[in-house]
Amino acid sequence: MATETLLFISRHRVLPYFSLLLYIYLIDCQQFIIPFKAPSDCGVDEFFDISSLSCSRCGSNQLSCICQTGYRTLNVFNDKISISCEQCPTDRPAVTQDGFGCIRCPRSLSTDGKCQCQSGYILERDINGNPLNDARCEACNNNSPALSVSNINGDCERCTSTFTNTSCVCPAPNVQEGGLCFPSRILSTNPNPSVNYAQLKFSIQSAWFVENLYSSTAACLTYSNLTACQALGNMCVLNMHSFASSSTDACGLFNTVYRSKAALSSVQEIAYRVNLPWLFYGDEPGLASRVLQTDPVPTVFSFRGRNQNTNIQLLAAVYNVRGEFLRWEQVGGSNLQLCPGLAAKQAAAFSFGTAYQESCDLSVADLLDSHPEPLFYDIYMDLGGGESRKLLPLPTLVENQQYNGGFINQSMRNWYLTRRMFLVDTLSGREKSITSSPKVIRVATSVKIFQLVPRNQEGLIFPPLMTLTYTDVLITDIDTQTVPITFAMDYEMDQTEARTKTDTALGILGGLAVLYSLLKTVSWKRRIASPIIDLETMLKFLLFYSGDLANVFFIVTVGTGLYWLIFYKFVSVLLPLPSQEEQFVTYIGCAFALKQAVQFLHKLYMQVSVDIFLIDWERPRSKGNRTVQHGDSKRDPSPVSIWRTYFVANEWNKLQTIRKISPTFQTMAVLFFLEVLNFSNLALRDPWSTLQRSPEAYTPPYSLILRYGLAATLWLCIALLQMCLQVIFFTVFYEHFVKDKIRQFVDLCSVSNISVLLFSNRCFGYYIHGRSVHGHADTNMEEMSNNLKRESLCGQRGLVPNSDIQTFQVAITNRLRQQYERIQDSLSRRNRPSRLMDASTANLSDLQFRAYNTMNHFLGSIIDHGHPDMDYMVKEKLMLERVIGMEFMEPADKSYFYSEAHSFSNVLFYGNEATLLIFDILFFCVVDLGSQNFVLAAVLTYLQQMIFRFIRNTLGRRNLANKTLVDQRFLI
Amino acid sequence: MATETLLFISRHRVLPYFSLLLYIYLIDCQQFIIPFKAPSDCGVDEFFDISSLSCSRCGSNQLSCICQTGYRTLNVFNDKISISCEQCPTDRPAVTQDGFGCIRCPRSLSTDGKCQCQSGYILERDINGNPLNDARCEACNNNSPALSVSNINGDCERCTSTFTNTSCVCPAPNVQEGGLCFPSRILSTNPNPSVNYAQLKFSIQSAWFVENLYSSTAACLTYSNLTACQALGNMCVLNMHSFASSSTDACGLFNTVYRSKAALSSVQEIAYRVNLPWLFYGDEPGLASRVLQTDPVPTVFSFRGRNQNTNIQLLAAVYNVRGEFLRWEQVGGSNLQLCPGLAAKQAAAFSFGTAYQESCDLSVADLLDSHPEPLFYDIYMDLGGGESRKLLPLPTLVENQQYNGGFINQSMRNWYLTRRMFLVDTLSGREKSITSSPKVIRVATSVKIFQLVPRNQEGLIFPPLMTLTYTDVLITDIDTQTVPITFAMDYEMDQTEARTKTDTALGILGGLAVLYSLLKTVSWKRRIASPIIDLETMLKFLLFYSGDLANVFFIVTVGTGLYWLIFYKFVSVLLPLPSQEEQFVTYIGCAFALKQAVQFLHKLYMQVSVDIFLIDWERPRSKGNRTVQHGDSKRDPSPVSIWRTYFVANEWNKLQTIRKISPTFQTMAVLFFLEVLNFSNLALRDPWSTLQRSPEAYTPPYSLILRYGLAATLWLCIALLQMCLQVIFFTVFYEHFVKDKIRQFVDLCSVSNISVLLFSNRCFGYYIHGRSVHGHADTNMEEMSNNLKRESLCGQRGLVPNSDIQTFQVAITNRLRQQYERIQDSLSRRNRPSRLMDASTANLSDLQFRAYNTMNHFLGSIIDHGHPDMDYMVKEKLMLERVIGMEFMEPADKSYFYSEAHSFSNVLFYGNEATLLIFDILFFCVVDLGSQNFVLAAVLTYLQQMIFRFIRNTLGRRNLANKTLVDQRFLI
Repeated sequence: MATETLLFISRHRVLPYFSLLLYIYLIDCQQFIIPFKAPSDCGVDEFFDISSLSCSRCGSNQLSCICQTGYRTLNVFNDKISISCEQCPTDRPAVTQDGFGCIRCPRSLSTDGKCQCQSGYILERDINGNPLNDARCEACNNNSPALSVSNINGDCERCTSTFTNTSCVCPAPNVQEGGLCFPSRILSTNPNPSVNYAQLKFSIQSAWFVENLYSSTAACLTYSNLTACQALGNMCVLNMHSFASSSTDACGLFNTVYRSKAALSSVQEIAYRVNLPWLFYGDEPGLASRVLQTDPVPTVFSFRGRNQNTNIQLLAAVYNVRGEFLRWEQVGGSNLQLCPGLAAKQAAAFSFGTAYQESCDLSVADLLDSHPEPLFYDIYMDLGGGESRKLLPLPTLVENQQYNGGFINQSMRNWYLTRRMFLVDTLSGREKSITSSPKVIRVATSVKIFQLVPRNQEGLIFPPLMTLTYTDVLITDIDTQTVPITFAMDYEMDQTEARTKTDTALGILGGLAVLYSLLKTVSWKRRIASPIIDLETMLKFLLFYSGDLANVFFIVTVGTGLYWLIFYKFVSVLLPLPSQEEQFVTYIGCAFALKQAVQFLHKLYMQVSVDIFLIDWERPRSKGNRTVQHGDSKRDPSPVSIWRTYFVANEWNKLQTIRKISPTFQTMAVLFFLEVLNFSNLALRDPWSTLQRSPEAYTPPYSLILRYGLAATLWLCIALLQMCLQVIFFTVFYEHFVKDKIRQFVDLCSVSNISVLLFSNRCFGYYIHGRSVHGHADTNMEEMSNNLKRESLCGQRGLVPNSDIQTFQVAITNRLRQQYERIQDSLSRRNRPSRLMDASTANLSDLQFRAYNTMNHFLGSIIDHGHPDMDYMVKEKLMLERVIGMEFMEPADKSYFYSEAHSFSNVLFYGNEATLLIFDILFFCVVDLGSQNFVLAAVLTYLQQMIFRFIRNTLGRRNLANKTLVDQRFLI
Repeated sequence: MATETLLFISRHRVLPYFSLLLYIYLIDCQQFIIPFKAPSDCGVDEFFDISSLSCSRCGSNQLSCICQTGYRTLNVFNDKISISCEQCPTDRPAVTQDGFGCIRCPRSLSTDGKCQCQSGYILERDINGNPLNDARCEACNNNSPALSVSNINGDCERCTSTFTNTSCVCPAPNVQEGGLCFPSRILSTNPNPSVNYAQLKFSIQSAWFVENLYSSTAACLTYSNLTACQALGNMCVLNMHSFASSSTDACGLFNTVYRSKAALSSVQEIAYRVNLPWLFYGDEPGLASRVLQTDPVPTVFSFRGRNQNTNIQLLAAVYNVRGEFLRWEQVGGSNLQLCPGLAAKQAAAFSFGTAYQESCDLSVADLLDSHPEPLFYDIYMDLGGGESRKLLPLPTLVENQQYNGGFINQSMRNWYLTRRMFLVDTLSGREKSITSSPKVIRVATSVKIFQLVPRNQEGLIFPPLMTLTYTDVLITDIDTQTVPITFAMDYEMDQTEARTKTDTALGILGGLAVLYSLLKTVSWKRRIASPIIDLETMLKFLLFYSGDLANVFFIVTVGTGLYWLIFYKFVSVLLPLPSQEEQFVTYIGCAFALKQAVQFLHKLYMQVSVDIFLIDWERPRSKGNRTVQHGDSKRDPSPVSIWRTYFVANEWNKLQTIRKISPTFQTMAVLFFLEVLNFSNLALRDPWSTLQRSPEAYTPPYSLILRYGLAATLWLCIALLQMCLQVIFFTVFYEHFVKDKIRQFVDLCSVSNISVLLFSNRCFGYYIHGRSVHGHADTNMEEMSNNLKRESLCGQRGLVPNSDIQTFQVAITNRLRQQYERIQDSLSRRNRPSRLMDASTANLSDLQFRAYNTMNHFLGSIIDHGHPDMDYMVKEKLMLERVIGMEFMEPADKSYFYSEAHSFSNVLFYGNEATLLIFDILFFCVVDLGSQNFVLAAVLTYLQQMIFRFIRNTLGRRNLANKTLVDQRFLI
């Protein structure tokens, strides 16, 4: 009666009450840990309690919780828990077959203290079911309503102890159900045996529930029957833990029973759940995060080193649908992984740090075959510990779980953790009988185990969470129907710290980038000799800034990638999840490509619009200032040959797209390392740093961050290596004999008696001093040869006497620039679009030739200090000036020539290797992140290089032709 | 007695006799085909004969071969075959429980016409086993020696009909064995129940054989018991069909029984093997090839089209070890494939034309778990046919099969085909009892189904052959032991025809190559103007021949590869086996690489040792024959500037390694198609031509022939495409505006007033006529511009007046050559090795300059027809001369100038595109065949191109510098 009242009281406040009770375990998560016990571990005076999975003590006079020989059983309500035994009197020394009575035997006693007859022929009760004093060897009567009934095998069997002690009839107010006899009105309402298939939008009356729901509930509630309680719990699990507060379905009944048990017992006993299985964690807000993120699991994982431990040991207590405990199973192999696969591959799932995901489509026919009835798993993590092995229960999150009709497990705040799961349920979908074929089956189509790893406690993890998604499959055609199955294992580390660091780095470097860009803008303003801040200035600043910001992003992302690569593959740190990294990488990647492309195109534009003029120092041979083999020593000027200018212009044209490293070799080498030497395997989401993988081993998915880090690092390393090798090659092997292209060009200028003056900005540019030390270069082979021979004997080539410095940065005065522009105006007045180029040289006017000669003379006399009002001064650049790329002295009265070796390559690809390299790397990485294909990235990078080289060449040649009046036909 | 005699007679000539009998079926292979019958197909008056797998008719008065109600069974020797029934008399209307007697009942009759008592309590015989007239409802007495004995369940059971009809005692001379009663001395010797594990070199007394070998043999021989005969056969299969003629092991006994049966029955009945399973095909020589290669299977397979049929349907009749027929099973899924895998992947094995191979290591523990006892499979190919489905038995070849201790299945001549197989035998290795754990297990570690496909009968196949290899595994530690398992399916087509065709093509083309090489040698002899045949000539011939032969091999192999690619992937033809193709491809590949490399290096050597001289037409300006803006019109000669020569030499230097196609683009494009667009999937050994493969689908191995064909074809196609695109590009977009490099060079010669004379052979070479139409080119920009402007107005540039032809092939007279060499001698006397090159120009002597000027004048005057004794004539080449590459006219008195446009590119990479392309292709393919890695092949091909370009450039530049006296510093 007390039970009944309680049920009525508490029905309408299920959850608050429920959670109060559950809160007790949740004070300390350590309490969840249980010691590992197998049935075989229990002693002779113990039995294995399948609810608490522990060994419990039997009563006295018992062996393995069965009364000793000669002792009869007194009562057996809670299965084995409260058995007590009593010795039989000497006049009736034998125990009856059912173990509950004492009797005399017709023949001798068997070793277990029972009467011995032919198997199945013992009769111990009379026709009315009353126990006899003397047993007889006779078949038991099938029709007798006695305590001993004949079972289907024709053997005699005692009806259960729920019946009265005198006969197998369930007397009046009591109700017989499922082979048991219950007091009436145990449950105030009728249980609801329907199973709701929410995904299919219908529910069916399940034969299994119809047959077992009431009896299990009643047996569990009234008699605390162990297997009945488990069976009731299993039905709740089959309903995916869903219930409503006012419902009488399996979970509702389970909670009803739970509450009544809790009220009946003391706090300590709640912890053992009085034979009920543990299905729910409780629903108070924030419980889930407390369970999952408060205390780490007391096991340390480590990828390498002395304490290497990557083996995640999971154990499952397996129950059948009737609530019987079957066995302990090591999780692994195929018990949670429905997809077939090699053992070695499947075992990779339980290797700590390996992101595992395996999917497949399974045929419904196979599932029906292999899972005639569902098995239930209580999953534990094995914490090890030798003799005193400890187990940590894994909380489960059922995606489909409903509470009062709503899906509650959508946001973590509401997560309602549960326990116990099944994989395939072909049973509850049987409508007519439990042997008919099912109308619907329910399959755990997605099993994901997710481990959260705290950042600063090395190798520790929080309790893993298992997330389940069930799918209802309506059986239409079992031969062709398939179900997609997924099993995944993933890890997450708290990335807040990493992200903070990244953000800080970005912030600081971004700020520096602003300063640097400002400096560049100021320098640029000075170089174009324009003091006002206008829209162009702003635009220029943005262009500079985008380039610098892109560099900052590049440095930070490569650093991050490299960090993960090293720390994940060689130290024990876990990767960000794909969702986290994808956002990060693609965001940055896009920002990049744009900005870097802006900077790159800007540079390209600047380069192809540079001002260039070739100053020919050669004067017509009018004076006899040198010896000529044939002919007189005095004659009139003959025209100076233009071919030296052609030669120099042609070489300059070829220089334009020369790079410090070979970009194709670069691409090929990267491809070689990634795809042939399988460096790409380093980007897999597992902690192993081996390059060769067996085709039979599990291949985890790629991590985008690792791919990026790997590819960028390889590019940088190979580029560095190439440059080092070139340096070694040129210095060690070739020495003075073969020079790099830039120096060759400078030499050529000297030999051909031609100087090059370039203006990259209005008042800033570069000067290559090419005046021949021999005075003349326009001569025949013999004299050229002699000149070359005398080169070492003669004075030095430098602009300043007795120096060798030939290349300068020039900052010119405004006046000089204006004069220059005046001449250039008439030089380039008739420049025309390229499409008519073939005819263009034909139309060069006399005016242009005159302007060309004027320019030649003008610039020559400037260099020769011929114009005192436009004089210049040669200076060394200060170290600081070099570093920040800005000149401190403004060229007001005098121009300044700064001697800077080979800095004129800044207007070529050669001097902008860093920008080009970074652009290539980003291009490669962005293509790869989009396609996850290194070969495609390499091919497209090559194409991109080709295209930009073509553009640079074409535009550069046209610019050169326009500015120097050299016909494009000679620029080949 | 007859049986016994026969056994003695024939024991010593088992095989001849045996094969004679078997020959009967083998006259026509079609006879092997049986109709498909399942037990459910048999009618009510039929039973399913598990030996012949057909429905056999029952006797009269029977329903499903059980006597009708009220009829008693008379005898039941051959299980169901010879049952006869007799109606019970009316006074004893009921049939006894055993079905053999008639009786009166105490109560009413059941519906099946037997007495009705409580289950198991009927008593029909007295204490002595004699049948009663009136049955009683009483438990049967366990101890009575009656015909009715109590079985382990306590029920009464009739002892088998092998006992006398009156009691279950086996009377004196008879012997009781395995629950049966046999006449004594059925078998003259004791059977040998040991199982021999030849691989482990021991044999054990198998519990299963001890228990069942004699009884099965006896029951089969004496009573033709169906399951006993099957069980005996199974034991022979467990022994891997091995037997010796004088042995009494399972197979020996099986053959003994077989022979006795054969003697007892007529020929027709042999075909049904009188309940014996079909295990052997017979041993006559050549039988195997007759069975396998005479008649094709009457099913047509086709990869595509209307009759697409690629599904190989195999059926297996499954028996258990006790000889009971279990079921028909569709082969596929996991029944022959022990390795776990997705159904879709495993199903690929039975797709016709797909080379399937799946291997894995299975743990012994799993095998023991999943195969508690062996299952036996009789494999048939399902020929379809709706209602009248036909089955073709698959012959099996057991690699381990021994006959008289020798392995007979080593060469096909001796093949001894068998039938029936098992996968895992964990039973016969049990020594003490059949429930103990096995000491050894035997596993079919390799199951290969091999289909031979006749060439000319489209889509037909010969009967597939299943090859089995068993492995004996000694159980030492079941937890760690693994067994490697392989399942493979392969196809072979008769390749004789293909090989003959290939050989023919090689022969014919090889012969042509000899002729062509001879022609080349003759041409070469003429071009070096040497009439004697010396060692050098032979060597030259070999060089030419190796190149031509390599081309022949290339054409034939590419043709073959393309043939297989097209016919395998798009028509129904089967690939050669890996063993066949590997030999072919690698053999050719090696031969190739060598020969082509020889030819390539030869060409390279020829190119870098060519004689070249730049003829400068410019004369010093001594005459006032033209107007100059500044200065007077009459003056003395000033030195002619050498810079035009430098310019031309520099451009020629750059031309050297220019190619018609971009080799890097080529490599990248090939890589793109193969690896990004996944063309490489076309080289898989399955008949599908899809490029995208699901990662879950089966991936067959690559075919080397297909890889070769695919790669070579792609290279050729992309090269062709590149050339076409270039043509379109130059003709459509750029027209006269941008020319290809070769024409640009010729133009440059004209503009710079410089001619180029090349000698590739002693008396043969090329001439580029570059005499400026303006007379002078060594002038200033203005005049150059005017010259260019006037270009279109002036006369034409050609050597012959009023022609435009500037490029010639020249065949010079010996006298001219001698004169040339004389001058050249002093020109190049002081040529020095390259390492001192930097100092070399400094040491050019006056002698050399004089020689240079002499040469310039000499060659100029030759071209100007200045030497009547060394005159030349301009000719058109005949078509035939062009085709065979030889000049018919010997330059005896006069030299000949043949006008051939741009043929001078023959001494450059440009004119040898075909050779270079084929070399690249072969290099790529050979690397790929060696490494099966296209990326590696691409990277190495790129490197190879780089290296050879570098070599060609370096050596070419040095040669140019030596021959033209242009300082290497100007060749940049």
